[in-house]
Amino acid sequence: MRKYDLNDTTFVSVAKGIENETFMTVSQIIKDVNPTIDGSNISVLSGPSHAEEVVNRIPTAVVVASEDENIAKYVQATFINSFFRVYSTTDVLGVELGGAIKNVIAIGAGIIDGAGFGDNTKAAIMTRGIAEVSRLGIKLGANPATFSGLSGMGDLIVTCMSKHSRNRFVGEELGKGKKLNQILKNMKMVAEGVESCKSLYQMALENNVETPIVKSVYNILFLGKDPVKETYKLMAREMKAEHENN
Amino acid sequence: MRKYDLNDTTFVSVAKGIENETFMTVSQIIKDVNPTIDGSNISVLSGPSHAEEVVNRIPTAVVVASEDENIAKYVQATFINSFFRVYSTTDVLGVELGGAIKNVIAIGAGIIDGAGFGDNTKAAIMTRGIAEVSRLGIKLGANPATFSGLSGMGDLIVTCMSKHSRNRFVGEELGKGKKLNQILKNMKMVAEGVESCKSLYQMALENNVETPIVKSVYNILFLGKDPVKETYKLMAREMKAEHENN
Repeated sequence: MRKYDLNDTTFVSVAKGIENETFMTVSQIIKDVNPTIDGSNISVLSGPSHAEEVVNRIPTAVVVASEDENIAKYVQATFINSFFRVYSTTDVLGVELGGAIKNVIAIGAGIIDGAGFGDNTKAAIMTRGIAEVSRLGIKLGANPATFSGLSGMGDLIVTCMSKHSRNRFVGEELGKGKKLNQILKNMKMVAEGVESCKSLYQMALENNVETPIVKSVYNILFLGKDPVKETYKLMAREMKAEHENN
Repeated sequence: MRKYDLNDTTFVSVAKGIENETFMTVSQIIKDVNPTIDGSNISVLSGPSHAEEVVNRIPTAVVVASEDENIAKYVQATFINSFFRVYSTTDVLGVELGGAIKNVIAIGAGIIDGAGFGDNTKAAIMTRGIAEVSRLGIKLGANPATFSGLSGMGDLIVTCMSKHSRNRFVGEELGKGKKLNQILKNMKMVAEGVESCKSLYQMALENNVETPIVKSVYNILFLGKDPVKETYKLMAREMKAEHENN
């Protein structure tokens, strides 16, 4: 049997999420399970890329991250073509956090839809949602610009535009007044944002970062709080500057 | 007749755009026309706020900018209420540039819709559009984070979700193959993004900043270039890192 040298292999992770309790991202889990792998050999590819459109060769742009710039550029050069444009970055943590948080904010945007608020409200939740998780990202060592990029805001936009997104769907049902266990019972697929919300909520608490939107989504998901009241509570917070660091 | 002391008055501009040739923003035009006004008395209020929703008291979040932090906070405290949340900032230029550029990028997003590309493509144009104009903003002295905020990305999102946006509509018609003069002949209202595109294109040239999406929108608007070919040209650019400073 041929033996593979794991350190000769470049891994490209396309999975999203943050493990509960350990708060590990997917690339960190891969490293944890295979401690002999050199971390720079693990790259992460993410961004607004509905598979249904990619297989139909509809122009799509994504980002690939590796600690090692050369590995990122190698994966970029491997996958780039006339309808799949790949950008590179060394901010692995930012790309992975962005991919996980966008599912949580998408639940929030779905809640706004389901509860019958407007496009203004939805755009506000999306924009302020990215802003608050950027603050958490900075504390953890990510580049805040990554959250405004393809793996953060870009992926959030495509998720919120889609009628097929499972996370947005869970939010919409919650916004209409259904309870989480009812909603999940009727779903065949996993909505990753539900579990990622628990992780993000805990990470924000432990890092002393204010994340009011993640907290509201958490309250609605797990504490059965009323979506309309939670939205007005967000509106009634003390006055803030647009860019604050906590 | 009572005389007003202009320096006792706080102006709040809610108009958007960049004047052709002079490249002045609206607050700069106000100062230019009334040179005795102290600049810090002019504030700018902007963000994702369809008027139809605001009058119906649908929760909305915007940002107000003044050079003088206290004036910004004063306007914030004046307008904030339970359904209209106002954030403050001192980045007047960033807020005004964001408000102008979002109309140009919205034309780009409309082109993607009209030409029959997908949600992936539209999210990519929106995200990379904000990224490229942030680069121009940095050169002009704005805070790049402002472009990811309510007056930039937030307003762009609400514009791109709306079927009523005049700028997105112009783009959609261009994407279907119509020419600009035909489209404008049938419109009763102004699409500010058409004129702002000229200004932005020239500003980028003069400041030596690469803005491929603005350039493509310009080429389609004013040089009659083909929308589908221009989109594939964007996909075929050399490989890039996600965050570059030029």
